[in-house]
Formats: sequence, structure tokens, C-alpha cells
Amino acid sequence: MSGGFTLPGEAGHEALTLELAEKWGADVIRDSDGTQLSDDILQAGYGVYSTICIIREHNEFARQHPECLQQTFLSTEPQTAVDGALTIDLLAGFFREQFRVNDGEASRSYWQVWDRTVGALLSPAAWRYADGVVTIPAPVPFHSYTVSFLAYRVWEEINMYNHVTNHWDKEHLMPIDPRLPAAQAYLYGWLENWCREHPATTVVRFTSMFYNFVWMWGGDERHRNLFTDWGSYDFTVSEKALADFEREYGYALTAEDFINRGDLQVTHMPPTDRKRDYMAFTQKFVAEFGGRLVELVHRYGKKAYVFYDDSWVGVEPYGPHFPEFGFDGIIKCVFSGYEARLCAGVPAETHELRLHPYLFPVGLGGAPTFMEGGDPTRDAREYWISVRRALLRAKIDRIGLGGYLHLVEGFPDFVDCITEIADEFRAIRTLHQSGGPAVLPLKVAVLHCWGGLRPWTLSGHFHETYMHDLIHIDEALSGLPVEVKFISFDDAKNGALEGVDVAVNAGRAGSAWSGGDAWSDPALVTALTRWAYQGGVFLGVGEPSALAGSWGCFRMREVLGIDRDTGARVCHGRWSFDVETVPGLLPEGCGVRGLEDLYLTDGAAKVLAVDERTGLPTVTAHPFGKGCGVYLSSFQVGPANTRMLLDLMLWAGGKGLDQPWLTDDPAAECAWFPAARQLVVINNSGEARTVRVATDTAPVTVSLPPYGIHIETR
Amino acid sequence: MSGGFTLPGEAGHEALTLELAEKWGADVIRDSDGTQLSDDILQAGYGVYSTICIIREHNEFARQHPECLQQTFLSTEPQTAVDGALTIDLLAGFFREQFRVNDGEASRSYWQVWDRTVGALLSPAAWRYADGVVTIPAPVPFHSYTVSFLAYRVWEEINMYNHVTNHWDKEHLMPIDPRLPAAQAYLYGWLENWCREHPATTVVRFTSMFYNFVWMWGGDERHRNLFTDWGSYDFTVSEKALADFEREYGYALTAEDFINRGDLQVTHMPPTDRKRDYMAFTQKFVAEFGGRLVELVHRYGKKAYVFYDDSWVGVEPYGPHFPEFGFDGIIKCVFSGYEARLCAGVPAETHELRLHPYLFPVGLGGAPTFMEGGDPTRDAREYWISVRRALLRAKIDRIGLGGYLHLVEGFPDFVDCITEIADEFRAIRTLHQSGGPAVLPLKVAVLHCWGGLRPWTLSGHFHETYMHDLIHIDEALSGLPVEVKFISFDDAKNGALEGVDVAVNAGRAGSAWSGGDAWSDPALVTALTRWAYQGGVFLGVGEPSALAGSWGCFRMREVLGIDRDTGARVCHGRWSFDVETVPGLLPEGCGVRGLEDLYLTDGAAKVLAVDERTGLPTVTAHPFGKGCGVYLSSFQVGPANTRMLLDLMLWAGGKGLDQPWLTDDPAAECAWFPAARQLVVINNSGEARTVRVATDTAPVTVSLPPYGIHIETR
Repeated sequence: MSGGFTLPGEAGHEALTLELAEKWGADVIRDSDGTQLSDDILQAGYGVYSTICIIREHNEFARQHPECLQQTFLSTEPQTAVDGALTIDLLAGFFREQFRVNDGEASRSYWQVWDRTVGALLSPAAWRYADGVVTIPAPVPFHSYTVSFLAYRVWEEINMYNHVTNHWDKEHLMPIDPRLPAAQAYLYGWLENWCREHPATTVVRFTSMFYNFVWMWGGDERHRNLFTDWGSYDFTVSEKALADFEREYGYALTAEDFINRGDLQVTHMPPTDRKRDYMAFTQKFVAEFGGRLVELVHRYGKKAYVFYDDSWVGVEPYGPHFPEFGFDGIIKCVFSGYEARLCAGVPAETHELRLHPYLFPVGLGGAPTFMEGGDPTRDAREYWISVRRALLRAKIDRIGLGGYLHLVEGFPDFVDCITEIADEFRAIRTLHQSGGPAVLPLKVAVLHCWGGLRPWTLSGHFHETYMHDLIHIDEALSGLPVEVKFISFDDAKNGALEGVDVAVNAGRAGSAWSGGDAWSDPALVTALTRWAYQGGVFLGVGEPSALAGSWGCFRMREVLGIDRDTGARVCHGRWSFDVETVPGLLPEGCGVRGLEDLYLTDGAAKVLAVDERTGLPTVTAHPFGKGCGVYLSSFQVGPANTRMLLDLMLWAGGKGLDQPWLTDDPAAECAWFPAARQLVVINNSGEARTVRVATDTAPVTVSLPPYGIHIETR
Repeated sequence: MSGGFTLPGEAGHEALTLELAEKWGADVIRDSDGTQLSDDILQAGYGVYSTICIIREHNEFARQHPECLQQTFLSTEPQTAVDGALTIDLLAGFFREQFRVNDGEASRSYWQVWDRTVGALLSPAAWRYADGVVTIPAPVPFHSYTVSFLAYRVWEEINMYNHVTNHWDKEHLMPIDPRLPAAQAYLYGWLENWCREHPATTVVRFTSMFYNFVWMWGGDERHRNLFTDWGSYDFTVSEKALADFEREYGYALTAEDFINRGDLQVTHMPPTDRKRDYMAFTQKFVAEFGGRLVELVHRYGKKAYVFYDDSWVGVEPYGPHFPEFGFDGIIKCVFSGYEARLCAGVPAETHELRLHPYLFPVGLGGAPTFMEGGDPTRDAREYWISVRRALLRAKIDRIGLGGYLHLVEGFPDFVDCITEIADEFRAIRTLHQSGGPAVLPLKVAVLHCWGGLRPWTLSGHFHETYMHDLIHIDEALSGLPVEVKFISFDDAKNGALEGVDVAVNAGRAGSAWSGGDAWSDPALVTALTRWAYQGGVFLGVGEPSALAGSWGCFRMREVLGIDRDTGARVCHGRWSFDVETVPGLLPEGCGVRGLEDLYLTDGAAKVLAVDERTGLPTVTAHPFGKGCGVYLSSFQVGPANTRMLLDLMLWAGGKGLDQPWLTDDPAAECAWFPAARQLVVINNSGEARTVRVATDTAPVTVSLPPYGIHIETR
């Protein structure tokens, strides 16, 4: 078997490139940031992806048009006035190689100086600016002040990261902003020229469109990372964007809409209406100009794929404007199962995963990968095991790698591992060809602020979001035999609960995942309460539906039968309880991290597990009408907990645990493809397993080597 | 030595009473709830305390005047409407032996029926009442409703507790409310008669005045304790109190002012202005009628002491009305050092401690005491060791016990232990006679919502409030050689920081201890910031000054140099740091429980200790002008941590750790009485210790047996 595999080629390593293309069954060869393809490679008969990050590698233009550099709002940290004038160095604390103050007149009209002690904006007459410094001549002693300002970004962030990580000694690439007409005209012309000059390229791989996720660096090595958010739009801003927005929406955004008292607009918090407007405004622009670029690529007989990372901001593959781009494919870099589902669900013809590790000497957080001390084979295996189970549930068309191919030379194990992975991938892809896998009678709706616009992901990769319960839930769901959809709180009010068996709400109070202020709407609470009463399972994790101002903390407490004391109820007595055991419900090895200050509301909840340290419930189920409230104090993904989640959803919904196409071992999972009559069983563990699989007739027993896969026709 | 000791006598056990009076050096014999004194005891030449709980033991009157029973507002738990009418049984969930619905017309005018889903009050036309049940004929389906109503309390709570605990089979005593003129007239006459009939009584020991702390019981044994608050005023309410309040204050209170969305008005949360008004209103009444009763007692040649527990509500010994009572003494039951300081600071002539354990078969939480499985000697020793160190700092005049004396008969160790304790107490009392102990140059102000009205205590005993950092701080401070005062946030703004070296703010966000909304006042932040800049040490514990709405979470973050992420800053990078060691600063064995989501604000804080699990700071110090912000993520009292607290206050204030009259061993403490030139050293541990004590000349070495005390003249 071959095909469906994208190999990163490397000029100067032609023999290796072609040897591995053969070994891994590649049908496409690509370049990467830092590598090029030579004629020998281009003419070897493979498809050719060429990576384009359209907004960088134009330093000459950027120097001639510094007003076309991309920007962002920044704010200084609060500085306390003592006696006399207060001077504030705008870029103190920031990485000066990334930012340059935009002190032009139009920019200055957006600047804000705040007395943060009283939360008051200073009048422009109360401060002055010169040479990178704001002076407040007469501050109130012992009040703290900040300055919000626009800064050009003079080093494109991915280039900055790769440069620093690999100790490059090259020119810093500057990002230019196609929002400005001069930049837009230039880029369009540049791409047209590029297409003409690259006849061998079959696919232009956009990395991605124009605006990077937010990544602000600090000046101090002890505080290099100031802020990262995969889903925020700060890096799209400019005087022109702000002026266009005001014209289109009839109101003006201010610096504070971005700075937000220093919190910035993190994806993990509920978006304001103004933020939603600004996102929609930006998406529309990105799709418009992006669509023109794709059309240009098509005109040259090439396909256009988009990389769903890096400069993806404004692309929003699940947004209303995405089809307007006309992309032929989407490529997602993946560590986890949920990322595979995130890719698979995008409305595009071709879905490709770029596996990890990236072929760089170092990986995540600077850990060694393709160098002494690294174990890229272990990494590749680990990520693949997470991804593979999701591939049983949703079809992916291609996989691939990226980086410097020559680095694999010292790692023959890694070469063999990728050979196996590529073969397994193609085998799984084949299973989907005659129809999807069977699912249990469980329709799950995950409920959060972003809903269907941002399914599966919270913001970035698992290792960036592991502290949120919901990413663990999403990762568990990504490989379970259930139907999953993501709905917003508005959706829940407007009929999206119809046909749903389980609604999941998981997160910290006030977050975009728990919902924060969305719960102030009685229509939401009423809709969910009615739905639960009529048979739905409301599954809350952490601080579901938490919002102060009603009775207790969880707005869904009547359904959940459990609530959290936020400090006002320390003197309230607690229901005592016994832990109840439901045979077969909680798999061996499952465990849920406790949360403090939980209490039963009416004493009717069954407590299924407790935190041994505190004695507080960790898993409860509360009958409510024909439905049920299930509560987990937390959720950590893992084989036993994933199965526990499935079991709880089945049991609480009255579906019975005795379902076909489930294994008797949480470490192994399976899928049944009814049209092809094929059963696939996978071993997610590093030990050999022999498992029983329930089928629609007699159970079958399957033995699997470590990490093994078994496919049989029945 | 004898004197200063109050013995609980017991009729039928005269020989034992007189034997122990001799052994323990008693000068006073008292009765207790459930015991009486016989003539043999009364005429043995001792002073006699007679315990009076003025508002109970009047069941005949209560039956004739049921409108004079004490009351409280109650609320049903939310109940969800489904189809058709919703019926709500008012007392479902409550202990029906404690409450009876007051469904009189005046009472009904205060009732409220709430749609808690929307937070709306129903019009009286939308519900009806009959036979203990409220019916809402046409509720909104799937909304949740509550009913707030007035209930008579038909079983006085301390009687109820003692009755249930000791399995009594007596009539339930009912509490009557002197707010009602008929009750007031009756009680005054009753007391006059009582005084006439008890010539042997030298001291009337009021237990206490009229209103018990709040203690609501549930109907289900799994949920017997619904709510307890030592400092709340719910049990003072009545139609007359509400009407009088409205007349006096010009506005009416509603049921919701008490019910407060089911949270009730817990002492641990910042009081509303309405609650403060109602407290002041009640205190004035209690002092007025209480003063008349004390005057009556005085007229009969007896003294009047008040027990600072049980029905103490409205007495507020630190409130403006307390001197109006004219009490001759105050008696506080104590488990801890802070309670001794709480007693010692009350403006009264005589301060007495009632030690624990109480002479009952069972003690706290039903644990065995004077019965098989109990170890009353261990308990007495443990409490004494906590109390003793506070007695070195503040003078207490008397100690005593309570309960059934005959229970000690099987516990000769206990009898010996009390003999020792009584002697130690008298020795310590003597030390204070020629002047107080020396203190270090450290004036500490503890900053919370209650300030000087409620110093030392949070609400109730240590075992009821151990979950709050501040009670641990208070307990540590109670025996430290520093000057301590308690100030409110208003005090801090209005000059109370003058001369203060260390201001402590310790507690959970939003609580009365951290301050909650008090921090929205920029004048508070500015006053403390200025004071710190000029040399003050702001010592924050847990979530000090926490209030959303400014920049970050802690309003004092500029001084503290550390803050807590409440969820909006999960994507903000963190300063890395090294743990710094200051020689001699952190005693061996100290340790602070970690808190999640902490981050350094400007990277300038010294991190002195970290949580090993999370790597987050637990102890930091941040230079600020001439002062400093010190942060502890938590505080648990104990010998090493207490010394750590002292060391941090000295070091952060630039005072130096090398101070006289400190031991070199956290397990031992000392005090120097300069006028008497006496040094006292105590061993708080169960092992013998040899310690070096720094003096104003050469250090001295002292050897102490387990729990020992050493007093020497120098």
C-alpha cells in the first residue's frame, strides 16, 4: 500500500528523500520552513506541496512600507506613582526585537492612559509622549497607571520561534498586513509571480493566511512568554482595521476592547459582543482576500491547501466564511485525537494530518528530539496512539511530516515506526471507504460559548490546554463510538437539544467552557432543565453552569443535585452520604481528581466515588424526572476514565452497559464498519492484550501485540 | 496558692464537690445546665455562681403567650415546577421539633415567594397558603421556586443540643423573646423573684442574654445541621423587631435581607449595610433591657457576669453598647489561645475562662470524653497548651470548668491535670500583677470587615473555623510578643495604619476576612500602598485584597508582587524564579500549603518557599519603597509556622531576627515581665526541651519537662 503520505524533502539529501518516499509510501513531497526542494526531487514524479507563508519573506517591501507592518495593541504593566511625574517606558518588559511603537498620529488617537487604581481613563491633556516614553506630569500619588498603545510587530512570530529554537543567524522576517491596499496589491502580484515561477508545484500549502495566533514575548529571559493564545485576534489590528470596523459596525473599538485590564481577550473566557463583531469583521476580510489568492492559485492549475495552525487567525474553518476561500484541502498538525476530529470535520475535500514530532532537533518546550537525549520514536508512537483511535471514528485522507528530513538519519527506529504508522493509517482509511463506523445510541452535545464555531479544540494543543477539564473530555470523546456535536448556549435555547442524549458542560466558573454570564439567561436554564426532565443526561464537570447571583453557584443545581460553595456557605451543614456501587459502571483504574467545597443539594444524588483526602464526592448521579444530572469534579483522559465516561453516559441515560462493539478492556478499543462488515480492534497500551469484543452475535476474542491493530471481516 | 477557680458543683455529690474545690483551689462554685447546688454546697463558704438562661425555662408562659416565642426567617429549598400547580411544604427539610410556621397575618406580610430561576418576587396574588403549604397555581414550567417565611422556634437550641447529646427525656424548653412587652414584663418580674429566692448566689452568670447564635436543624438525620453561625442575628427577628426597625431606620427589611438567596447572612461574608443597621438596632435593644436586668441583679447585692457564648447575640462585647449593660465580668469558653485574648480584651472587671473539656460524657462532634474511649486528660492538656501561651500576653483573672462533676470520678489523671493547670494559671496571673510583658517593636494590625467589633475570632471556635487561614494567623498571634489590633477597612483609610508595622489581610476572595467589595474603594488601596511604600509590611495570606474588576485579582498586587489568576490569565506566561534562602528566616519544620494559579507580577518578589507538587510560590517577599509585601499562600498554625510568621514580620520590616526574649526553639516560647523582672519559659511540646533564651544581656539556657513551665527572677 502506498499513497496518502506527504514527505518533507530536503535539497542536498536527494537520495534520502527518495528512499524514504519509497519506504513510507509517499505520493507527495513538500518543503518546510528552512528547507528547499531541488530539481532532482521536484522531477521524481511525486506531487509537490510548496509551503507559502504569504505575509513574510517580503522584508524589502516592509522596509519601504513600514506602515504596512502588522500590529497589535500592547499595554504596559501597572506602574505606581510616588511623588511628582510618572514616566512609563512603553516597551519595558517587551521583547524589543518583536515590537516597535507605532507613534504615528492616527495610531496615537487610539492610545489610552489609565489610572487602574480607580479604573479611569486619563484625558489626553493629562499625559504626553516622546521617544517611546509616556509622562504623566501630575499623577495621583500611589495610584497605578498603564498605557495602551499600538505597536508594529517587526518579527513574524513563527519565524522568530524557529529562528531562536534553531539558533539561526538569518535576517528576521517581518509580517506585512494585507489589510493595507499597498500590501495587498504587492502580495497579489507576488503570488502571481510565484505561481508562474513554480510550475512543478501541484499544491500551494498556505501557512496559513495572514494573521498569526497571538504570541507576545517578554524582554526578560525569565519572562520570555508574555501571552499566547491560539484563537485570539489581537494580531489583526491596525488603524485601518479599526477605521473600517467603525464604518461597518457603526461603533468604534478602543484599545481597552483588546487590553481588557491586562487580561487580553483569551479564548478561554466568554467573548464579549464586541469581540464577536470584530472576529466576524476580520473573518470576512480574510476570506475575501484569501479567496482571491486561492482563485489565483487555481488559475495556475494548482490546488490550494491551508495549514490549520500558525497564521490561521481569521480563517475559522468552521465559520460561515470558510467556504468562500475555495480551499481544496486542510492540513492540521496533531498531537491528539481531538485534533484529528477537528481536521476531519472541516468542509474541505482533502483532510491531512501533519504528525509530530516535527523533524527539528528540539521539540516542545525545548526538549531534545532529533538529537542526543531525544527519543523521537517514543514521541511519534505516543502521538499516533492518541490520534489513531480518532481515525476509527472519522475519515482522514492523508498524513505527513515536516522539518529537516536529514535529521532522521541517526534514528532508524523512527524510520521503521513511521513506516508502520503510514501502513496503519492507510488500512484505517480503507475501512471508511464503504461507509462510516457504527455508533452507540448516544448523541452527545458539548455545550460552550464557542459552540460549533470552535468544535473539539479549546485553543491550541493538548499540552497548552491540559489544565482544562473539557480538553480531556474532548480527547476522550474523539475516539468513542458516539455521535458528538458542539453547541453554543444560544443553540441550546433554540432547539439544538432535540435528539441529544447527553449534554456536557465542563469547565472552571466564568470560563468560555463553563459559560460564565451565559447562565444568567433563565431561558437557557429552563430549556436544559426541561430537556433533562424529559430524559436528557446533563453531565457537568468541574464548575458547570457556575454563575453567582441566583441560589447557590451552579445554575443547573436542581438537575445536578450538587453544588459548590464559593465561601458564603461555609456555615451550612452538609448532607452525609454513603458511596454507592453500581456493578460494572466504574472501570478498574478510573479516578477523578477532587474539587473542594462541593455539597449535595437535596441529598438525593447517588455518590459513586469520593476524593479520599477530603471525603467529598467526585462522581455523582442525580435522578431528575426521566433524566439525570451526572457530575464529575474533574476529568483526566486515560483508558479507564475514557471508558468510565462512556459507561456513565450509557448508564445515566438508561441505555444499559451491555452494548455491542465494546471491548471488555479499557486499554483496547474497537470499531465496527457495518457496510464493509469489518471489525477493527486497537491496543492503546504498551503491553500485549487479549480482549473480548461484544458483537451483535457472540463475542469474539482478539489478541493484540503492544500498540497493535487487528482488522477482521465478519 | 488558691483562688481564681470556678468549680462546677453538683447536688448529690457534695463530698466530691468540696474535695475538688480544695484540691483545685476553687473560690467559687457554680451550677450548670442539668445540675443544681445543694444547701451543703451553698453554705460551704464559697462564692456561688448561678447560671441563668433568662429566655428559657418559662414554658408555661410560652404556652400562654405563643406570640412571644422567638422566631427566625426560614426559606424552603428551591423546588422545580413541572406541569400545573406547584405545592411547597414549608417545613419539609426542617427539624419539626425546632420550628413552627408563624402564619399569623402580620407574619404573612413578610413572606416572600421567589422564582429563583429568574430572581423575581411573585406577587401575593400568584400564590396561596394553607396548612403549612404554599401553592403556586400557575408557575412557569421548569422554573424553581422558594418560599421565605417566619417560623417560631419551639425548642431553645442549647437545650435542644444538650437534650439530644445526653439523651434527656425532659420537656423541651422554649425560647421567649423579650422584644415583646408581655415577655419583657414577665422576665423582669421573674428575675426579681429569682434574686429574692437565691440569697446564696453571689454572681448571676447570664448564659447569656436573649438570642442564641443561629443554629438551624434539618429533619433528615443525614442533614441534621442546616446552618450554624456564631455571629449571625437571624434568631432575633420578629414582626415587632421588623416594625420597630422600620420606624427607627426609616426603611423596611425584607425576608430576603435574611435569606439572601439561601446563603443567609454568614459572618464569614462581608455584611451589607442593612445587616449592619439591623445588628446595631438589635444591640441597642439587648443592651437596654439587659442593662435593666443587670441593674436588678446589682440591686440584690449580686454581681452579674455574662457568658460570651450561646445566647450572646446582640451583646457584642466589643460593641459601643456593651458598657451600658454594667456587667461585672465576662466568661468565655475556650479551646484556643485566641479565645483567651478575645476574653481578655473585653471592657469588664473580671475575665474568666471556662476550660474544656466540658464535663459531659461526649464532647465535640459526639466524640467520647468522660466515658469509655475518651481521654479527657489529653483533651484538657491540649487545650490548655493552646490557651497558656496567650495567657502570657494578656491577663485573665479566673478559670473554671462546667458540667457534671461526678463524671471525673473515673478519671484521677484528669483531676491531677486540672490541679496542675490551676496552679500554672495562678502563677501566670501573678506575673501580670506588676505590669505587662515586654513586646517586640512590632505593631500588627489585622485587617478585615469586622475590625475592632469582632477582634480575634472569626465566628465560633477553632474547630468550626479551621478552614480559614485567618483563624490560624489569629491563633499564632495570640501568643506572640507583639502588639495586635484589629481594624476595619474604613479604619485603615482613616488613620488606623499610623504606627502600624505589619498589616495582615488573610482570607478567601470575597470573604469578610479578605474584604470583598471593600477593595473597590481606591482610597483603601491608596492608603495601604502609601503606608507600605513608607515602610509598612503588607502581609497577605491566601487571596488578600482579591476583587475582580481592576487589573488582575489582588488589588494590592503592586505591593505584594504576586497575584492569582482567576481563569482569564491561563494563557499569560509566568515569570520563572529561583527559590532564595535567607539564613535563619524559615524555621525547620515550617510549611505552607500551596494555592493554585499564583503568578509573580513583576518578577521582583523573592520566592522563599514553593509548593513541591506545583512548583508555585508559597512564601514571597516583594520590596516596595521602604516597605515590603509579604505573601503566604496559606497559613496553618503550629510551632514552626508560628515562629515563621514572627520571623517574616521582623525580617520584612527590617527589624532583624536577633531580638531579645525569644527562644531558639519554636516549640518553646517565653515572656519577659520587665517590672517584675521575671522570665517565663513554656514548653508547648510533649517532649522535654532544653532551649536558649536571648535576653537583654547574655542568653540563658533553660530545661523544661514535657509541657513544662519555668519562671525565674532576673
